[in-house]
Amino acid sequence: MTTVGILGGGQLARMLALSGAPLGLRFLVMDTADDACAGQFAPLLVGDYRDERALAEFAGRVDVATFDFENVPAASARWLSERVPVFPNPDALALSQDRLAEKTLFRELDIPVPDFADVATREALDAAVQRIGTPCILKTRRLGYDGKGQFRIRTPADVEAAWQALGAQAEAVGLILEGFVAFERELSVVAVRGRDGEFRAWPLTENWHVDGVLSASLAPAQVDAALQATAIAHARALAERLDYVGVFALELFCRNGELLANELAPRVHNSGHWSIEGSETSQFENHLRAVLGLPLGDPAMRGHACMLNWIGEMPDAAPVLSTSGGHWHDYGKQPRAGRKVGHATLRTDDPATLAQRLIDVGAALNRQAQVAPVVARLREAE
Amino acid sequence: MTTVGILGGGQLARMLALSGAPLGLRFLVMDTADDACAGQFAPLLVGDYRDERALAEFAGRVDVATFDFENVPAASARWLSERVPVFPNPDALALSQDRLAEKTLFRELDIPVPDFADVATREALDAAVQRIGTPCILKTRRLGYDGKGQFRIRTPADVEAAWQALGAQAEAVGLILEGFVAFERELSVVAVRGRDGEFRAWPLTENWHVDGVLSASLAPAQVDAALQATAIAHARALAERLDYVGVFALELFCRNGELLANELAPRVHNSGHWSIEGSETSQFENHLRAVLGLPLGDPAMRGHACMLNWIGEMPDAAPVLSTSGGHWHDYGKQPRAGRKVGHATLRTDDPATLAQRLIDVGAALNRQAQVAPVVARLREAE
Ligand SMILES: Nc1ncnc2c1ncn2[C@@H]1O[C@H](COP(=O)(O)OP(=O)(O)O)[C@@H](O)[C@H]1O
Ligand SMILES: Nc1ncnc2c1ncn2[C@@H]1O[C@H](COP(=O)(O)OP(=O)(O)O)[C@@H](O)[C@H]1O
Ligand SMILES: [Mg+2]
Ligand SMILES: [Mg+2]
Repeated sequence: MTTVGILGGGQLARMLALSGAPLGLRFLVMDTADDACAGQFAPLLVGDYRDERALAEFAGRVDVATFDFENVPAASARWLSERVPVFPNPDALALSQDRLAEKTLFRELDIPVPDFADVATREALDAAVQRIGTPCILKTRRLGYDGKGQFRIRTPADVEAAWQALGAQAEAVGLILEGFVAFERELSVVAVRGRDGEFRAWPLTENWHVDGVLSASLAPAQVDAALQATAIAHARALAERLDYVGVFALELFCRNGELLANELAPRVHNSGHWSIEGSETSQFENHLRAVLGLPLGDPAMRGHACMLNWIGEMPDAAPVLSTSGGHWHDYGKQPRAGRKVGHATLRTDDPATLAQRLIDVGAALNRQAQVAPVVARLREAE
Repeated sequence: MTTVGILGGGQLARMLALSGAPLGLRFLVMDTADDACAGQFAPLLVGDYRDERALAEFAGRVDVATFDFENVPAASARWLSERVPVFPNPDALALSQDRLAEKTLFRELDIPVPDFADVATREALDAAVQRIGTPCILKTRRLGYDGKGQFRIRTPADVEAAWQALGAQAEAVGLILEGFVAFERELSVVAVRGRDGEFRAWPLTENWHVDGVLSASLAPAQVDAALQATAIAHARALAERLDYVGVFALELFCRNGELLANELAPRVHNSGHWSIEGSETSQFENHLRAVLGLPLGDPAMRGHACMLNWIGEMPDAAPVLSTSGGHWHDYGKQPRAGRKVGHATLRTDDPATLAQRLIDVGAALNRQAQVAPVVARLREAE
């Protein structure tokens, strides 16, 4: 009997546990919150990731450890990795926690990136804005997620406000300025690498964000084979360089038909949730297979899938449940503004049916704006 | 937040809980064993189904109750149904617990059945064997499962041995004699009926038993449309008569192209396990949707699926995990002779590929005999 430890007990840990149960696995989830939603289906250890006593208890109860939360302190991951196998390895985790290190590595691997500059002081910010130009985005190097820790600089006049908002964090977590990419699309590669180096990628996913938070994903993304091959090659090069084990996502912008890498998420990813129903093997199951050294499963698609995120509170389930191919995911969380509380996936055999179902569900839930860009994309291809 | 109570904590309860989590449900499982495998993923209340104190605690902690185990005493189900909604209703449960009542109802609904006779005494047994002829099978009316509580009478000379084996149970659970059906196939209809009477059926499944225990299932069964329609009409007539709510299976023999009803299983069923990966909505999810009064999901198939039962102990997982479309289900049980400890499902887009994958997996696991009849059936159709 193998017990998998997961640092972080949110919806990713919850879906990992649910998909790992059929593999005969047990789980232990560690979270700072005693109502972490994964705790409804797996034993929960409440503790701080920096507390060595809690970490030691965790290490003593698991056979292998992984993450639901990418911002676990790298030092904690290292401490743990001296006691139990930890996947992905703490160096890969640390790298992807730092936007500057990440983009520097992308460049080194010849993966194109938006312009960027390290920003340590107000003077450095001025110089960077001068060089990169506006619009641009000031971001914290570390601890950002779901668009948090970002400030958009539309004109040089916004620089002062950006520094007011984030300057105080320059020392603690660092800052990075990035050129704003007027992209046509956002894409992600969700991929998995096994302990033995075997590598597999799901078909590319197109993603739409609202206020920096994922709103909808469409798979397969409607891109040509060459672009897909390039994106997957980038993901593979990264995984190999980092000796990465498990599932990860590479977020990309597509501008004038060219790919620019945005960031690497060192875990199962919101843009891969559709894989539960939309592919032969879900990202959650394949992450566990990778971490345990089991053979990887087939990431081939089953038809076409669109995932809609539910932020803040769950909408009425009935319209999705009464749609053929409609699948509901309620994470069992309390409602709270800005919180990811659930998602739905619509799966169909062909894109035209998917567009029609999205229109119907969007109308029934009064969420026309959420489905509109996905419908438009599907209609383009018809 | 809705809590579903499940009486019985085996693999069916486990798979119900795993498939109900995405609906935002919580579970409470009650079982007599403190290591019941559903307890690994849901809170477990250990108690006897006849213990009113335990039942009262169970009733107090759940919003609705259902069954993983069909032999919960009908009186307990009734006692519970006075306190919380119970689905399927206790009368439907009671009927399907008694092979004589069940077959009598089948006849009443013009559903053909094998010859049968109530057997209360040794004299009645002799008379029944005389009337029905050999071969025939003596079965307990109640509490049988997985071929337990059955004795095959090949010639009149076996009658004495049959009475020795089961006669002592004539008073406590009753006995029934059935004509032995030299069937070409065994089929099952897995179907679901909602609280509002909505009815849906998965495509027919063909099943192979070894020593009275399910060994393999193939879906869709390769039968003509008329036979499928008749089988589903029988299932629907039964469900409507019983005001049945939830998933159930109707087991059928097919002899000379004619259907004969064997038994009704008032719960999710082993012959529907393939629906987890092989259909748009699994039997587990649809059972919960029905019990909760939610819209039913689409039972349409996704390709072709074969389920292989693992009895006694789990085989090596690697051959299935490394097969595209191979899905593993380890129930987290201790190995024990005759015990259902897990299953695998192979899913493919076409029957020829399914046959080839079965041959490969059968060879890798040295289980050629288990896959052979399924492969033969798939090859017939080519
Ligand atoms: N340089 C950029 N140009 C244009 N849009 C951006 C840029 N950086 C971020 N965004 C937008 O904000 C979203 C969230 O930013 P991201 O850097 O991915 O941070 P997070 O860690 O919060 O996901 C992106 O998916 C994209 O929509
Ligand atoms: N009357 C019969 N004729 C032929 N085979 C039978 C008959 N009854 C049972 N069997 C065989 O035994 C298996 C188990 O018997 P069944 O009555 O379904 O009891 P259980 O409740 O154990 O499933 C059946 O699936 C079938 O293979
Ligand atoms: Mg991002
Ligand atoms: Mg049976």
